[in-house]
Amino acid sequence: MSDIKKVVLAYSGGLDTSVILKWLQDTYQCEIVTFTADLGQGEELEPARAKALKFGIKPENIFIDDLREEFVRDFVFPMFRANTIYEGEYLLGTSIARPLIAKRQIEIARQTGADSVSHGATGKGNDQVRFELGYYSLEPSIKVIAPWREWDLLSREKLLAYAEQHGIPVEMKHKQGGAPYSMDANLLHISYEGRHLEDPKAEAEESMWRWTVSPEQAPDAPEYLDIEFERGDAVAINGKRYKAHEMLAELNKIGGKHGIGRLDLVENRYVGMKSRGCYETPGGTILLKAHRGIESITLDREVAHLKDDLMPRYASMIYNGYWWAPERVAIQTLIDHTQQSVSGFVRVKLYKGSATVVARDSVNTLFDQNIATFDDDGGAYNQADAGGFIKLNALRMRIAANARRKRGS
Amino acid sequence: MSDIKKVVLAYSGGLDTSVILKWLQDTYQCEIVTFTADLGQGEELEPARAKALKFGIKPENIFIDDLREEFVRDFVFPMFRANTIYEGEYLLGTSIARPLIAKRQIEIARQTGADSVSHGATGKGNDQVRFELGYYSLEPSIKVIAPWREWDLLSREKLLAYAEQHGIPVEMKHKQGGAPYSMDANLLHISYEGRHLEDPKAEAEESMWRWTVSPEQAPDAPEYLDIEFERGDAVAINGKRYKAHEMLAELNKIGGKHGIGRLDLVENRYVGMKSRGCYETPGGTILLKAHRGIESITLDREVAHLKDDLMPRYASMIYNGYWWAPERVAIQTLIDHTQQSVSGFVRVKLYKGSATVVARDSVNTLFDQNIATFDDDGGAYNQADAGGFIKLNALRMRIAANARRKRGS
Amino acid sequence: MSDIKKVVLAYSGGLDTSVILKWLQDTYQCEIVTFTADLGQGEELEPARAKALKFGIKPENIFIDDLREEFVRDFVFPMFRANTIYEGEYLLGTSIARPLIAKRQIEIARQTGADSVSHGATGKGNDQVRFELGYYSLEPSIKVIAPWREWDLLSREKLLAYAEQHGIPVEMKHKQGGAPYSMDANLLHISYEGRHLEDPKAEAEESMWRWTVSPEQAPDAPEYLDIEFERGDAVAINGKRYKAHEMLAELNKIGGKHGIGRLDLVENRYVGMKSRGCYETPGGTILLKAHRGIESITLDREVAHLKDDLMPRYASMIYNGYWWAPERVAIQTLIDHTQQSVSGFVRVKLYKGSATVVARDSVNTLFDQNIATFDDDGGAYNQADAGGFIKLNALRMRIAANARRKRGS
Amino acid sequence: MSDIKKVVLAYSGGLDTSVILKWLQDTYQCEIVTFTADLGQGEELEPARAKALKFGIKPENIFIDDLREEFVRDFVFPMFRANTIYEGEYLLGTSIARPLIAKRQIEIARQTGADSVSHGATGKGNDQVRFELGYYSLEPSIKVIAPWREWDLLSREKLLAYAEQHGIPVEMKHKQGGAPYSMDANLLHISYEGRHLEDPKAEAEESMWRWTVSPEQAPDAPEYLDIEFERGDAVAINGKRYKAHEMLAELNKIGGKHGIGRLDLVENRYVGMKSRGCYETPGGTILLKAHRGIESITLDREVAHLKDDLMPRYASMIYNGYWWAPERVAIQTLIDHTQQSVSGFVRVKLYKGSATVVARDSVNTLFDQNIATFDDDGGAYNQADAGGFIKLNALRMRIAANARRKRGS
Repeated sequence: MSDIKKVVLAYSGGLDTSVILKWLQDTYQCEIVTFTADLGQGEELEPARAKALKFGIKPENIFIDDLREEFVRDFVFPMFRANTIYEGEYLLGTSIARPLIAKRQIEIARQTGADSVSHGATGKGNDQVRFELGYYSLEPSIKVIAPWREWDLLSREKLLAYAEQHGIPVEMKHKQGGAPYSMDANLLHISYEGRHLEDPKAEAEESMWRWTVSPEQAPDAPEYLDIEFERGDAVAINGKRYKAHEMLAELNKIGGKHGIGRLDLVENRYVGMKSRGCYETPGGTILLKAHRGIESITLDREVAHLKDDLMPRYASMIYNGYWWAPERVAIQTLIDHTQQSVSGFVRVKLYKGSATVVARDSVNTLFDQNIATFDDDGGAYNQADAGGFIKLNALRMRIAANARRKRGS
Repeated sequence: MSDIKKVVLAYSGGLDTSVILKWLQDTYQCEIVTFTADLGQGEELEPARAKALKFGIKPENIFIDDLREEFVRDFVFPMFRANTIYEGEYLLGTSIARPLIAKRQIEIARQTGADSVSHGATGKGNDQVRFELGYYSLEPSIKVIAPWREWDLLSREKLLAYAEQHGIPVEMKHKQGGAPYSMDANLLHISYEGRHLEDPKAEAEESMWRWTVSPEQAPDAPEYLDIEFERGDAVAINGKRYKAHEMLAELNKIGGKHGIGRLDLVENRYVGMKSRGCYETPGGTILLKAHRGIESITLDREVAHLKDDLMPRYASMIYNGYWWAPERVAIQTLIDHTQQSVSGFVRVKLYKGSATVVARDSVNTLFDQNIATFDDDGGAYNQADAGGFIKLNALRMRIAANARRKRGS
Repeated sequence: MSDIKKVVLAYSGGLDTSVILKWLQDTYQCEIVTFTADLGQGEELEPARAKALKFGIKPENIFIDDLREEFVRDFVFPMFRANTIYEGEYLLGTSIARPLIAKRQIEIARQTGADSVSHGATGKGNDQVRFELGYYSLEPSIKVIAPWREWDLLSREKLLAYAEQHGIPVEMKHKQGGAPYSMDANLLHISYEGRHLEDPKAEAEESMWRWTVSPEQAPDAPEYLDIEFERGDAVAINGKRYKAHEMLAELNKIGGKHGIGRLDLVENRYVGMKSRGCYETPGGTILLKAHRGIESITLDREVAHLKDDLMPRYASMIYNGYWWAPERVAIQTLIDHTQQSVSGFVRVKLYKGSATVVARDSVNTLFDQNIATFDDDGGAYNQADAGGFIKLNALRMRIAANARRKRGS
Repeated sequence: MSDIKKVVLAYSGGLDTSVILKWLQDTYQCEIVTFTADLGQGEELEPARAKALKFGIKPENIFIDDLREEFVRDFVFPMFRANTIYEGEYLLGTSIARPLIAKRQIEIARQTGADSVSHGATGKGNDQVRFELGYYSLEPSIKVIAPWREWDLLSREKLLAYAEQHGIPVEMKHKQGGAPYSMDANLLHISYEGRHLEDPKAEAEESMWRWTVSPEQAPDAPEYLDIEFERGDAVAINGKRYKAHEMLAELNKIGGKHGIGRLDLVENRYVGMKSRGCYETPGGTILLKAHRGIESITLDREVAHLKDDLMPRYASMIYNGYWWAPERVAIQTLIDHTQQSVSGFVRVKLYKGSATVVARDSVNTLFDQNIATFDDDGGAYNQADAGGFIKLNALRMRIAANARRKRGS
């Protein structure tokens, strides 16, 4: 007899979470609340409602929320203010969505009086950690059910058998061929894992990629974008203003057309293993380049370097699921403080897989042409100062070399 | 009356250092030793000898050295073991050459009994610092003459006038049009500064770039390279072994053909100003991607993260000219230690400006397919362990949330 | 003929700055504004007014300000929120006062229409940097006169001779014996440099110390203080509230009585040399211990570690004079954010040179006795969770060990 | 029926591990190998042999090893080269012993053909992690039995009842009063947890401390030690050379006499909770001060700062149990590299709880009296250089201030 009364399940409407829904009902004899979020993954969400109803979920227990603006405005953009990249390459597309889903699940749990939450992430991955650290941080006494860590449906075959046995409709694609890629999509990216990607020396199939054309198929002419920033966030393209989620959608569309943002990576998971993933992040790839571009003329050198030094740590925090942890908030406070002057425009050239900054300008620019010039600067900068600068910076090394010499070593 | 007796001048044979040569003779009435290094900049060096002789330099005082192998083997490759990038973008092509030139100048000074060294870097740039920190570290009592900080030839016009007046031949290109780009080239890169690049919102002219075709002009078919690494260094391409400097030359040739490695950047100089530079680093761009690729399967996660955390600091050290400083050596000791297992191959796809890792393998691989698989792993990994892992990682946040709740905040 | 019209001089009224005052008048024929700050150094300031008048300074050009509260509230306390120590030992007593003096000098320059500022710091020390980085940051076009870097009075004898020659009264103590210690005092500390301290293997004389009794002379009974903190700042001792500067003065008095806060250190100056200094920081030493004590129960682990990781960098910023730099402000923003919950009390035991935390409590405590207990916790913590926690944290090392074994190495 | 055949138990001979021994025999019906290490904890070890024999352990399965020299030479001293302190206070006395015990247990397991190891650490503490990360790193397929995480003897009473029931002798002290302090001792320190220390606002009882007299009881006269270092390690006191473990023992004896090295701390455990511990580390406290003292004159500034920046991370690695992890080894490689010149002597004054450096000297000294002097240095240092040094360091801030002014903000 279970002490689980009511569970809020992160429910996509797909096969895996449908099996989970049924398994929760059977295993815990509990009431289920389904929560389906629109994060811009590009799928119809209403079918999830229909499926939930079929499983006997009460209409008032079915939550389908459009979280796209909140996602980009309050999660993606703050992260991009830090120029965050994990392990030199990964733009954290999956990582950044999990904290929002966790937060909304807890809100729904409070609203519906649920005592538990559940998700469809496996016991090997990072997502379970990201979900559950969120749950526990926001609601320390919540009960968490992670079916993949509890049940014995650990192979694709067993999962399909369970579905068939319990009358859960299995689409044709699942029955044929082997297991599908494990995919995750939201406005920032789409990811692929599994199948033959599990061999790091096997190249990804061209047919796998969904959001970007191959660079070879991209237009033969480059396209230029003027991206406008205000306090660290992109607000307009070529003079047209966009809300945060529209901005990212637009950059995805344009970037995808030019084959921008594909990544094939072996990364280190928080749970201790290496895994291979492929990612398409067209808009994010452009955004990162452009953001660095606007920072290059508006940020002080040492502030920029401080940000660069903190960045890998910040990226690990997000990757590992610590969005709701106090150290993450502390770093964000610093990051946001630095972005006050990060306004202006950046021109980016897009062409067959590349996004390149070619020009940038800002009313807050710290670039002083008068000083930087190779021409006569009229005394703005006294070159003789450099002599003293170098002498004192060299002093400790000169003293050391002299000391070595005296000791005869 | 000067106390300068004999000066070793870093002499390219070009206009600027020829004016310096003459100016040193006139100003200090001293003996001059010229030193011209082949770092793979792709220029004939023998003309420098002829010019030096014309200035009355004694044959035994003319040094022309091929430093290409030493440059790549002992400077470029060690730096790439650290995946070094300055300010998120710059591959440090100029920075990494200066310490070697400084070292060789000091060696020649000792050999020829010179008491002074001189260089042609201006008083506004980083190179003066890189040269002089090297000089002082290696020979603490050396005298340094930096003509640009001493003379009054601070405009292009004055420099040309001085040359004409002293019978220094000025090529046609210098007389026409405005000032040329300030350029620096070696096996790792070629850089451009000055002219209209001094306006960060003006796009670079296509005609400026020299080492790479524009991506638009690159071949319509991608090319794949299998790059072999041993202990962190690239040693073979498609099965053919190369010495260090040949490896970089070959990667430059191939990368240049595919339009790879252009960069347009506003960077922060050590002397305190922002400056805009354009860079072509075709081989280095490929090498960095490939090195990260081989590290992704051969390096432990925490070792990789430690390297990533130290990287910006290491990049600043090199950028600022501290190659010969003890803290640089200390970090290199750590970096080299980590590279013992970084051997294997990486497949890179080159296409119209992009270099992308698509496959990698190593006998030292830490990728364990058996554990990473989405299929049944036969017990290699116990998914239930993740529950405890998450619970304890969440504990401090749960305690905090409980404490907040008790306080009613 | 000088272009200096009016100079604001940081004027202590002592011999050195009196010589400077006279030298400025003679050298630049300019109007002088004297600025004398009360930072709690424990000296009468009115004599400085009398001396200034004697030099012909106009009454309206004599500024004597009590900056004690601003100093401790806006400089010392913010710094202590970061637990700042330079090179493992030094509490930055001199460093933290310079930015305030620089700021006030610039304010007075604006108010009086002065075009220049001047100070009495030598060309070998850190203080010149701290003053001048402040001046330039706050007023980029200010002219700075650093007499020690300009004049030829580089020995004690020459200085005294100049004073005698120009009718500047020299106290008996200056004439006798050798040079005095170079001292600096404010509410946070008093420092000593020079004389036989210039030999790092010579022990400081007992007679040198001024603020603390020797531990041997301290009371034979310990004293306990209950220090109350609010949001990171000490606000009360044994239940009695104090303003910031009174708090520090009180802690100095008590700490000095118990022989607390002496330090004898060889430190690395920003200008490149090592120097030996002795410091007395009685109140600060107690405060640092107590602040760490209250943080130990009110700060999250990872927030505390983030602070610890940033601390040496923050200490260097302050030591090197970058208080007014944007990177310093950025870090302070993070630090202050973390201090919201740092409230509560700490009991410190003072005895013959030691300050030891012996108890601490807070309404915001994150110490959960229920979980930490060695007794039965009634299920608050599930010990089995630790197994999974360890297993996953060990996973990468197990995989690596297995891989090594397979390769037979 | 268990698959455990033979277990190497870390056996102290005390009550807890005796209960574990019996419980392992009963629960797993397996052969037991006992391992008792002399780490300088100051207890007789032979009684452990007698007890083991009574439990039926075969003589060849009883291992009693003197690991004192290895412990100090290969673990304690390397750690002290890094000046390691956890959370600003804790000298890591327990943490540094665990990796050695784990290593030896694995060696014994290999030697005796055991398939399992076991320890007496609870499921709430750090030690379980330190032991088991060591086991798994060195022998990835070893089985680990952590009785405290498996059994139900979770209170003191149950443990005592089990002991009585199984004929395990319980000393009088255990029967009377409440639970004893949880203590751990080795040559570096002795620690206390539990009992009324579980209330962080309760002061520790004077009677608890064992290794140090109270400062009040310490001699009324200070004592001076001249400690000699070679390459970062202490090798002699007052001219007398000691082996590593004798050195630490001697420093403990002298430090304990002077009441040095007591610490009362609330720390953050790796498993997520705060806990309160008291520590006595007399020799280590002296050693840390002295090591910083010798580094202060022999280490380059930037090398010292690099070490300081890495130190908290290094301390966390050791605290959390990652001694055998590759990132720990990588940092140690850097640390050891820096210690080549860290030789010389330091004079430390010990008095009633304080250890203070009062003098230091080295043939490798980087302290240059000629440059540091306040007297005329005869041109060794050109004070005018400082002007350029400051100007260029201020440049970015002056440009920023000018830019703000132009924008009128």
